[in-house]
Amino acid sequence: MSDGPEDGADTDGSPEDPLDEVGATAVEGSEELTHTDDEGDVQMVDVGGKPDTARRAVARGEIGLQPSTIEAIRNDQVEKGDVLATARIGAIQAVKHTWETIPMCHQIPITNVDCEFDVREDRVVATVAVETTGKTGCEMEALEGVTTGLNVVWDMVKAAEKDADGQYPDTAIRDVRVVEKRKREL
Amino acid sequence: MSDGPEDGADTDGSPEDPLDEVGATAVEGSEELTHTDDEGDVQMVDVGGKPDTARRAVARGEIGLQPSTIEAIRNDQVEKGDVLATARIGAIQAVKHTWETIPMCHQIPITNVDCEFDVREDRVVATVAVETTGKTGCEMEALEGVTTGLNVVWDMVKAAEKDADGQYPDTAIRDVRVVEKRKREL
Amino acid sequence: MSDGPEDGADTDGSPEDPLDEVGATAVEGSEELTHTDDEGDVQMVDVGGKPDTARRAVARGEIGLQPSTIEAIRNDQVEKGDVLATARIGAIQAVKHTWETIPMCHQIPITNVDCEFDVREDRVVATVAVETTGKTGCEMEALEGVTTGLNVVWDMVKAAEKDADGQYPDTAIRDVRVVEKRKREL
Amino acid sequence: MSDGPEDGADTDGSPEDPLDEVGATAVEGSEELTHTDDEGDVQMVDVGGKPDTARRAVARGEIGLQPSTIEAIRNDQVEKGDVLATARIGAIQAVKHTWETIPMCHQIPITNVDCEFDVREDRVVATVAVETTGKTGCEMEALEGVTTGLNVVWDMVKAAEKDADGQYPDTAIRDVRVVEKRKREL
Amino acid sequence: MSDGPEDGADTDGSPEDPLDEVGATAVEGSEELTHTDDEGDVQMVDVGGKPDTARRAVARGEIGLQPSTIEAIRNDQVEKGDVLATARIGAIQAVKHTWETIPMCHQIPITNVDCEFDVREDRVVATVAVETTGKTGCEMEALEGVTTGLNVVWDMVKAAEKDADGQYPDTAIRDVRVVEKRKREL
Amino acid sequence: MSDGPEDGADTDGSPEDPLDEVGATAVEGSEELTHTDDEGDVQMVDVGGKPDTARRAVARGEIGLQPSTIEAIRNDQVEKGDVLATARIGAIQAVKHTWETIPMCHQIPITNVDCEFDVREDRVVATVAVETTGKTGCEMEALEGVTTGLNVVWDMVKAAEKDADGQYPDTAIRDVRVVEKRKREL
Repeated sequence: MSDGPEDGADTDGSPEDPLDEVGATAVEGSEELTHTDDEGDVQMVDVGGKPDTARRAVARGEIGLQPSTIEAIRNDQVEKGDVLATARIGAIQAVKHTWETIPMCHQIPITNVDCEFDVREDRVVATVAVETTGKTGCEMEALEGVTTGLNVVWDMVKAAEKDADGQYPDTAIRDVRVVEKRKREL
Repeated sequence: MSDGPEDGADTDGSPEDPLDEVGATAVEGSEELTHTDDEGDVQMVDVGGKPDTARRAVARGEIGLQPSTIEAIRNDQVEKGDVLATARIGAIQAVKHTWETIPMCHQIPITNVDCEFDVREDRVVATVAVETTGKTGCEMEALEGVTTGLNVVWDMVKAAEKDADGQYPDTAIRDVRVVEKRKREL
Repeated sequence: MSDGPEDGADTDGSPEDPLDEVGATAVEGSEELTHTDDEGDVQMVDVGGKPDTARRAVARGEIGLQPSTIEAIRNDQVEKGDVLATARIGAIQAVKHTWETIPMCHQIPITNVDCEFDVREDRVVATVAVETTGKTGCEMEALEGVTTGLNVVWDMVKAAEKDADGQYPDTAIRDVRVVEKRKREL
Repeated sequence: MSDGPEDGADTDGSPEDPLDEVGATAVEGSEELTHTDDEGDVQMVDVGGKPDTARRAVARGEIGLQPSTIEAIRNDQVEKGDVLATARIGAIQAVKHTWETIPMCHQIPITNVDCEFDVREDRVVATVAVETTGKTGCEMEALEGVTTGLNVVWDMVKAAEKDADGQYPDTAIRDVRVVEKRKREL
Repeated sequence: MSDGPEDGADTDGSPEDPLDEVGATAVEGSEELTHTDDEGDVQMVDVGGKPDTARRAVARGEIGLQPSTIEAIRNDQVEKGDVLATARIGAIQAVKHTWETIPMCHQIPITNVDCEFDVREDRVVATVAVETTGKTGCEMEALEGVTTGLNVVWDMVKAAEKDADGQYPDTAIRDVRVVEKRKREL
Repeated sequence: MSDGPEDGADTDGSPEDPLDEVGATAVEGSEELTHTDDEGDVQMVDVGGKPDTARRAVARGEIGLQPSTIEAIRNDQVEKGDVLATARIGAIQAVKHTWETIPMCHQIPITNVDCEFDVREDRVVATVAVETTGKTGCEMEALEGVTTGLNVVWDMVKAAEKDADGQYPDTAIRDVRVVEKRKREL
């Protein structure tokens, strides 16, 4: 399944393009860097000629933490789960705000967000699935959910991770990837 | 230099705490997870008793890209630099919005943001330095700047990175760390 | 007319669910608390399988004020109406921002907002009607409009309501309810 | 302790007013409705001549719920506490956003937010304490925290509270008041 | 092509109005000032009965600058283009935020934004084209893009435009107009 | 009175610069375009070494309207004043949001906003005065207040200004300037 169209390569002059001269303006020379027109000026991709589609993207990443911090999260999670609850809410909010956080993103209707935080012995693995019925993909929304969710975990455990000098020698966000991307015509 | 105080451990009953019974409420039992009070409920850290301080935090991370994408960025950068200009602006905006993106962060006066995007043969390395004169640290601001800046790079090169199935087998955000953290009394 | 479906009870495996395994994930065990999955983790409701529907919700509430403040509002309203104009604008903006104020709310297209502020001898009664053509209800939007509109009234009359000690012994927001909720298939 | 000054009555021509002709403009005839100048046009209060002060405001309110919903929250709270965790985070975010939600509010540095949600047999009582070191009071921040926190509770338990017709006959937000307001010169 | 309907004049009682008594409420007496109902209270226009339409609006305006500043922008543009890149991104973000910047605007799906900044000997001319598939026009979005884009140019060249007293005797934003407005049924 | 310092020219290595190597980084080669470092990359100005100062900026601009529209505003203003009340609130909100609307602006504490809308026979003249006690000037805040306030007027009178084809042949925002800029050491 190719998502090339998602980045507008098929929208110039396509019959369903409502205002095609603008579609044309938007996609000339943009095969490589789709947000850049032939003068290299930043542009949003024209999605006006694209149908609404059911789309799903899943991103995953992890934050490496000290075992003592993981233990604190585990105990907190068993009793109250607030570190992960905060991270989950932060991730969902970040998904909904992607259109303003990523300058060239369109605002699309988010129909579902599904977050998982898997606490392992030396790290927390975050997986965020996003679904939309909009005209463009939602992988940036899923990525924003993962990176923000992991940053919230970091913020929540700062005091536990910091060393005597207030530094974070062992803390790191790692391996953030898009692990699934699908679409289906409605 | 210890930043323990930054997370409130020294604010209960400290003479400069303007409304100390609240300071006390906020820090009881919060040695481990400073945003959690002794009932495990999410709370912001009370910074009311803390002096304004000159603080600086630097975070760094990278996004792995295909050499062909790096080449496209390089050429674009030499001619117009718009991919990195967009990432830089996205990073600066993310730094300024950290107080709303990270639920338990305070809003602090950001006095300086300094972004570097280093384009290497198979990746882009982002470094974001943030400075504040506020009552708490700015490492979360620096981390938000790095992860958002790298997400913007991803968004800008989506079409170049996607394979024929619209997936991103080679793209990944890696090794996001806080590389420097300092403060100085004003 | 049941709105149970609005909270997703009918979306798992329903034929019109575009990506049903996610619909399923989202609704298992969520009969009681629809934002909580079977592990009790906060989640948004999956609305991907739901049709666009014309929906209307009306909420109402009141703020009790001193007669002298009511008199000041009345006179101001007759001459310029600015207290209520500000409250009306604050309420409309709050309706549009509900998707970010209420963490688990979806962003839905608001097609109409209708605000009434009824000034009585000892209180102001706010009624906010919201309409949408989206996939989920808009009662939270109406409630956000009412509570914010009443808070704006409070903010505008603070100096008149405060006693000599700067306290508000008589001011209170009361009886905020959803008074109407309807939907119609498009 | 009088907060009258907080609404600017003492700022015109006061020596510490940095730009007094503006202070004068802002307060003429505004004894009653401090956001309205002598032409009745909406205005912010001029706080430029006011010292930074340690201020604290506490607001409280409740949402009436069905016993079965309370039971569901209790069990959820014992096991995971996510309904209240979400409400708590929503309340804290609302406190931080008050400057944009309430049109005439100033943005002030929030140094502490303390939320309590007390689950009783037929209602949940929310108490939000806010502290600032800014130039004006924070009661609007506390009120926004309470009303938003209660709206989040409503949103989280919608499916449990709705009757067979999707209406909310028994649900209501009640008795939202400012229960404490203090300030202390720094 | 008349856009009168866009402001609701044809929506009261029209058969496709999903909830017509509200449509009626919203448009009575609003021929002249469509955001004001027959009591003169601010209201949003009811667009619930209007079809989705492909719409395009183009706005244009200019900022007058000193020749030395223009020279600096030109040289910067040739080498990196960052002043205009920042203005372009600021304009696109402003277009997307119009629904919250202009109190009575609806949030509509922006499908395309096309910005041009034309650097002439004594001014920069900004042209912003916006397209939507929503229920109402997008001229306010185009106007917000132009005025914000020009403000960003001003911000970027402040040091070059200021005289020895820190004043801007020669800098001005001029002649901001809507130069094109079209719609087409989908 | 020179505001050159405001744009950082005096902050590199100045004794009060709390973290001077960053100050240095930020200002090298930035005499002309202060937001651009010596590699031409967009940067915020480092204000960390600058004292808090009482600053005031006043901007002014106008929107040209048809006499019939002016008449409608006048009558509305006499009876209820809602068009201008909405514009005034929109302007004040825009002033407070300038730090996120203008990418390189800092968030500064706004202590006072004073808006005037003068309705003349063929235009409305908006004047916005902004005051701050922050580390940098507020002319961008005043300009955002004027341009947004004028855009709100346009939005409120769209139906009255549009011709039979839905175009705006006579409507224009004109002559937006900074008419006063002052600062005083605190």
